[in-house]
Formats: sequence, C-alpha cells, structure tokens
Amino acid sequence: MVFSSKLLENAVREVSQLPGIGKRTALRLVLHLLKQPKEHTGHLTNALNSLVNDIKLCKKCHNISDVELCEICSNLSRDSHIICVVEDVRDVMAIENTGQFRGLYHVLGGKISPMEGIGPQNLMIDSLVAKVKDEEIEEIIFALSSTMEGDTTNFYIFKQLEAYKVKTSTIARGISVGDELEYADEITLGRSIVNRIPFENSL
Amino acid sequence: MVFSSKLLENAVREVSQLPGIGKRTALRLVLHLLKQPKEHTGHLTNALNSLVNDIKLCKKCHNISDVELCEICSNLSRDSHIICVVEDVRDVMAIENTGQFRGLYHVLGGKISPMEGIGPQNLMIDSLVAKVKDEEIEEIIFALSSTMEGDTTNFYIFKQLEAYKVKTSTIARGISVGDELEYADEITLGRSIVNRIPFENSL
Repeated sequence: MVFSSKLLENAVREVSQLPGIGKRTALRLVLHLLKQPKEHTGHLTNALNSLVNDIKLCKKCHNISDVELCEICSNLSRDSHIICVVEDVRDVMAIENTGQFRGLYHVLGGKISPMEGIGPQNLMIDSLVAKVKDEEIEEIIFALSSTMEGDTTNFYIFKQLEAYKVKTSTIARGISVGDELEYADEITLGRSIVNRIPFENSL
Repeated sequence: MVFSSKLLENAVREVSQLPGIGKRTALRLVLHLLKQPKEHTGHLTNALNSLVNDIKLCKKCHNISDVELCEICSNLSRDSHIICVVEDVRDVMAIENTGQFRGLYHVLGGKISPMEGIGPQNLMIDSLVAKVKDEEIEEIIFALSSTMEGDTTNFYIFKQLEAYKVKTSTIARGISVGDELEYADEITLGRSIVNRIPFENSL
C-alpha cells in the first residue's frame, strides 16, 4: 500500500496492529474517523487513554474494576465460599449473564500457553492458592475454555490445590441446549455420555 | 452487556461506534489494549489525534495529503490534461497500484446519496467544473463504483460538464480477468457484449 500521507500511513499502521484488523480494514476505519467531526476521534482516544491509565484490577478477584474492590467481591449477599476460576473479564460477564452463579470469581488473566510464552508465573495463580489456604473456601469451579491450554491450566491449578481440603469441579461439557445430536463432535458426545446426569436433575 | 467498570464500558461504547465493529469485537479490542504496555495505546491514540487534527486535503485534487499540494499533483511528469474522478483516497491508491494511469485525480469525497443525506453540494463537484472551465483539461475519466449512487453522481457531473468542450469517459465494465463466464451476472455480461472492443486492443 502506497499512502499519500505519512499521518494516514502512521494511523493505519497503528490501527492494523489490533487483533483481527488488517491494513484494509484499518484504512476504512481511519477514513471513517476523518469523515466524522474531530470530537468523535477525541472522545475515542480519551476513552482509550483513560481506560489504560486509570483502570484498576480488583485486589481480590483481579477482575477489571474502577475501584479497589469490585462490585461482585464487595457484594455481601454473594457466597464467598465458592470461587469460579475464569480466564478474563469476558467470561465473568458471560457467566453473570446466565444469572446461575452466586459465588465469587477469580480472574487468571489468561491461560498457560507455552506457544505464546505465558507460563504459570504470568497468571494470577499464586493468589488463588493463597486464598484457598487462608480463607474458608469450600469449592473451586474451573470455568476455562475447553482447549489444550485451558485443560493444562486447569490441571496445573488442580495440582497446586491438592494439598488443601477444597472441593474442585469443572463446568459440564456436553451437547449444547437445542443442538442436534448428529452434528455434535465425537469427543463432546462421548463425554456427555460418560458424564451423564440423573434424569430428574435435568428437568 | 453488564460491565464491571465504567471506564471499560465507555471505551467499548466508543470503539463500537466504528463501522463494522460491534460490542463484542470492541470488547475484544479494548481488552487486547489493556494487556499491552500502555505505550501501545499512547501510540495509537496519538496517531489518530494527529491524523484528524493535522491532515490536509490537497488544494487541487482534494486527496488526503500532509502538504498543500499532494505528491501526484506536484509531480510534473504526470499528464495534467487528463483527470480521473474518484470517490475517495482508497480509489486513488487502487488505481495508482495498477500503474496504468499517468494523469491527475479529482477526489469527490463521496457519492451523491439521498439516503445518507449526501447531495452534490456536499461533494467537490464545483471545483471540478471550475477546473474544466479554467484549465486545459482534455479528458475526464469517471471511475466511481458501479452502483446506483455512483451512476447518479457520474450523470450529475456529466450534465454539469456538458457546456464545456471536454471529452468524458468512464472506466470499462465487464468480466473480470480470470473469471468464468457462467458465473458472471447477466447485466455485466450483457454490457461486456454491447461494449465489446476490437480484439487487437485486448492483446
């Protein structure tokens, strides 16, 4: 791509470093901003700058928060004996949307992934172990994605927690509600048969 | 979507106002920025701010440029008697990439589109007519996209230029090089037969 302006080229290069955005999309986005009033870009850049500069992580669950202790951790009506371990804030939002979980969360900030250079020391695992050691935790629910990295992370944390008397569980894998059996992959279908549940529990 | 942080919500709302970016993609992009060093976001926002604040339009062709007269208009080896009318800077880049055009451009800044509230007065049409009137222009090539808006714009400008002795042409519509005939749409195939060219010209 040959640009008629260095400023344009620079903006396109920066935008195209975002994940999933190539040079062409970046150019489209940047030209869109140029057609808008300047204030729009000002609002966008201000929002991004104040986000990265002023954001806090909840000191207890490491979820993204504006204050030291996030709304969920500071909510006394939630069950502080159950902790759901998730990868990032999107998973917290997804589980909160279901309205089925009344415990607290623990956000790891990623998964163990040697390919991307992310080891256990880069994740918030130590503070989870410390929580289990020092507080009255009854159950740890693993809710990481069902990938090799997710399973590795689950297993690593499981091993770290073995010494302590805490129940561990993982969210159920199985056929999605509304899915046709014939289109389900073999592994999922196999697991859903092995891990079948009493019929009355499914009602 | 329920956010755990107002700063996060604000950033996601601003990013999701970009075209083709929904709330989920915006959240993914914003969380990506949060994982990067703060300087990355600084570079991005600086690049966008200096773009919208410092960018100039070439006073002659209205293409995006860092200086008053863009590189193409100030290039004396180009043919200033032929002007190619395009919608925006992306079209200039696309035509420049072909290496087949040695004339100058005229960037309209959009197409006539009553649906989007864009009329002739919002586009750089007057300055094109003035150019044809005052300078020695031999040919105007219309290179707008082949949509209803593009055709309307072509026709409007054509009518404006009728009073002047200037040759007007439009880029050829036809079957793409490498395309199978059977998959071409009827209108394109029909036009390509009506507007057939002498075989020796296609070599």
